[in-house]
Amino acid sequence: MKTITSAHLTEIISTVKTGRVLTDESDRFSYSFDGSFGTYLPDVVIQTKSVEELAALVKLANREKIPVYPRGQATSLSGGPLPVLGGMVLDLSVMDDLLEIHEEDLVAVVSPGILTANIHNAAEKKGLMYPPDPSSSHVSTIGGNLAENSGGPRGLKYGVTKDYVIGLEIITPQGELIRTGGRTVKNVTGYDLTKLIVGSEGTLGIITKAILRLIPKPPASKTVMAIFNSLEDAGRAISKIFCSGILPSKMELMDQASIVAVENYQPSGLPRDAEALILIELDGHPSAVIDEAEQVSEVCKEVGARKVRVPKTKAETEEVWKARKLVSPAIARIKPTKISEDATVPRSKIPEMCRRLQEIKKKYNVHLVVFGHAGDGNLHPNIIADKSDKEEMKRVEQAVSEIFEAAVQLGGTLSGEHGIGTMKAPFMEMELGAEGLDMMRKIKQAWDPNNIMNPGKIFPEPGQRLVLSE
Amino acid sequence: MKTITSAHLTEIISTVKTGRVLTDESDRFSYSFDGSFGTYLPDVVIQTKSVEELAALVKLANREKIPVYPRGQATSLSGGPLPVLGGMVLDLSVMDDLLEIHEEDLVAVVSPGILTANIHNAAEKKGLMYPPDPSSSHVSTIGGNLAENSGGPRGLKYGVTKDYVIGLEIITPQGELIRTGGRTVKNVTGYDLTKLIVGSEGTLGIITKAILRLIPKPPASKTVMAIFNSLEDAGRAISKIFCSGILPSKMELMDQASIVAVENYQPSGLPRDAEALILIELDGHPSAVIDEAEQVSEVCKEVGARKVRVPKTKAETEEVWKARKLVSPAIARIKPTKISEDATVPRSKIPEMCRRLQEIKKKYNVHLVVFGHAGDGNLHPNIIADKSDKEEMKRVEQAVSEIFEAAVQLGGTLSGEHGIGTMKAPFMEMELGAEGLDMMRKIKQAWDPNNIMNPGKIFPEPGQRLVLSE
Repeated sequence: MKTITSAHLTEIISTVKTGRVLTDESDRFSYSFDGSFGTYLPDVVIQTKSVEELAALVKLANREKIPVYPRGQATSLSGGPLPVLGGMVLDLSVMDDLLEIHEEDLVAVVSPGILTANIHNAAEKKGLMYPPDPSSSHVSTIGGNLAENSGGPRGLKYGVTKDYVIGLEIITPQGELIRTGGRTVKNVTGYDLTKLIVGSEGTLGIITKAILRLIPKPPASKTVMAIFNSLEDAGRAISKIFCSGILPSKMELMDQASIVAVENYQPSGLPRDAEALILIELDGHPSAVIDEAEQVSEVCKEVGARKVRVPKTKAETEEVWKARKLVSPAIARIKPTKISEDATVPRSKIPEMCRRLQEIKKKYNVHLVVFGHAGDGNLHPNIIADKSDKEEMKRVEQAVSEIFEAAVQLGGTLSGEHGIGTMKAPFMEMELGAEGLDMMRKIKQAWDPNNIMNPGKIFPEPGQRLVLSE
Repeated sequence: MKTITSAHLTEIISTVKTGRVLTDESDRFSYSFDGSFGTYLPDVVIQTKSVEELAALVKLANREKIPVYPRGQATSLSGGPLPVLGGMVLDLSVMDDLLEIHEEDLVAVVSPGILTANIHNAAEKKGLMYPPDPSSSHVSTIGGNLAENSGGPRGLKYGVTKDYVIGLEIITPQGELIRTGGRTVKNVTGYDLTKLIVGSEGTLGIITKAILRLIPKPPASKTVMAIFNSLEDAGRAISKIFCSGILPSKMELMDQASIVAVENYQPSGLPRDAEALILIELDGHPSAVIDEAEQVSEVCKEVGARKVRVPKTKAETEEVWKARKLVSPAIARIKPTKISEDATVPRSKIPEMCRRLQEIKKKYNVHLVVFGHAGDGNLHPNIIADKSDKEEMKRVEQAVSEIFEAAVQLGGTLSGEHGIGTMKAPFMEMELGAEGLDMMRKIKQAWDPNNIMNPGKIFPEPGQRLVLSE
């Protein structure tokens, strides 16, 4: 990899006719971090809405072997946009002009800088829904969601970002503009480049436009809250609900540590001695959700819930969901450093994974809080620590490694929705095997032989290990 | 490419310890055709249930540059399993032992030779559903469905095969066994090889096991049949239903030529002078489907349907759907050769596509019948001809080319669910552009540098054109 020379800078500045080129250290510093760990200063930051200028920059970078780091709002929890090798950061959050809803085709056409929540709102105005709902949707761009294949609570019923992308416009690592897929839900014309690029974390190209599939918005929804004395009973309730023929739109779990954290932060009368709280949302036809909420309540009671509540009004429903939304801010107040994991296991292994997590918590004496999307096995074990405490961070590193091992041993995966980035690259071979990882690497090398697109992500460097302490 | 020598044959026979090696011409002839056009005799056919033996055969083939053609039940309409360059056919229909339903994980684990209908039945016994429902599901294997990413009527609401595959075991073109994905719905660990391989038509490896996602079976369904004097009114009804917030599970169209063909074959009193018949299935909660069937009926009447019928009993419902199921056998009796296309357009372009198809029908004086999955833009224009009539087949070739052009011009795709195979390879660049096709070719070359896996498919040979006349 080359560093950027003054000749490069001159060429970059002459290429970017309609946008801005940031070179001041104070400007560049704002682009040196994301929602994960570490700071890496880029050599130059470019803001432009012009696809032609972006393509010309990628051609330049490819010719001169300069790293290119595409970036949205940098809410990544896995280091996706970090410019770990310096080079160029392309700030795509400025590409926020295009947000069209074509209701007759049930699609949205968007530019990468659009905030995901704005797509939700635009679709709802037309009676439609864009289902993927990452918790960050009010602050994250669709471009980032596409790069990382973001999930969210509704993944249980509706799937993840990838399931709603049917077409892309991308700039290849050679700086060529290509289109993949299109406006049809069914398309088997050659390899599915769309679904290869979504989730490839910016390592295979730059997404400059996307066609998203929308669905009619379900006309009604209903929530059930159930409190359990035992985490295992909560797990059994979740299994039994699936076997009763109901597919909820959300099924969220809070463990005792989450309940206590929320009660310490903003008390709302949740029982501090309960081991688990589950929140289930049903959506669909108005009479169907009433009926299903009753069935779900029955199942929870049969399994031994100590309390089951079906809020009647919109305000009551929001009150119930507020507890779940407060978990992240509540635990962030305990200690300054929050390590948010997303190791995911098959649904049936949730009780076993909960047990393993409690063992890891004790073994390494870490402050572990478990909550998340229980319905699809995508738990969020969060460890709360203080990164200035080197000894604690060593224990946290060991605990995190063991969480990954437990997930893979139970037939699960390192990452359900946050991505690999820099954080989990060292663990890739554990899940995929040397051959599986090699088949991924062959695609990367064929598309990007000079390794300019987001280098340092997904693929482990020789000897790379997890480092949370800087 | 090498042809198979007697030394190769000796090595093949010594490798296949548990299965059969077919070398007689009469045996090999059964493997020379599929549901499309042309016959190509393979040099040898291998039947084995052993993944280790299959992997050893692929290693041998890769070393000796022998073409390898994986094959299920060969119902392909695009030439998927045709051994166009001779070599080895691997008959995977014998791998029919594994069909496990894990209801607690909402997954099925299957071997490639299982008939898709058997997965439907096994899932339903547990109150679950495997949504993809290609019309061939009673005779086609899941392995073939995976290779081609099969669709079906339920694609409208539930998506296609790819949307339900979360893990695979494959033999790479180097003869290595790798696993992709797993048992979790959410998985963002590296590139999505699962969705790259599904739909790659056997050109990137051999699928030896698959993990499929299941959903709770909807407890009720209801059908609405509507007859229209004008095809355009039928198109408007389809659009209006989507805008009313209802997502039907199926929405099928028959044009006048289809209605007439069915009435000539097995009369059931359908009006021969009607330009279009649509069949809509709603599924979900019992009271929801009753309500939605009423709404859909109202929309059809408002738009000007001349008759709307909601069958009350199961027998009446089956009677209504029988007409749609009879289209294929009915038109097959008109002339011996049936060219079944699946060019797909954005939903809003269905009326325009119908108009273009009628123009093409007149221009080339071909017997064109239009039916299919109107709800997702996946029409099936079928041309009925006689392949011994060279002059007619020339006109058919020109009509087919123009159908592809029309679909691509309207923002659609060459193939919605049948695949590219040999049939549509010459048209790939028209849809994808040279650069887009090149990015696909880079993946093929990186994974299979000796081009042994199903060579002659997807990627056009220089100067290749559509040939239906042999």
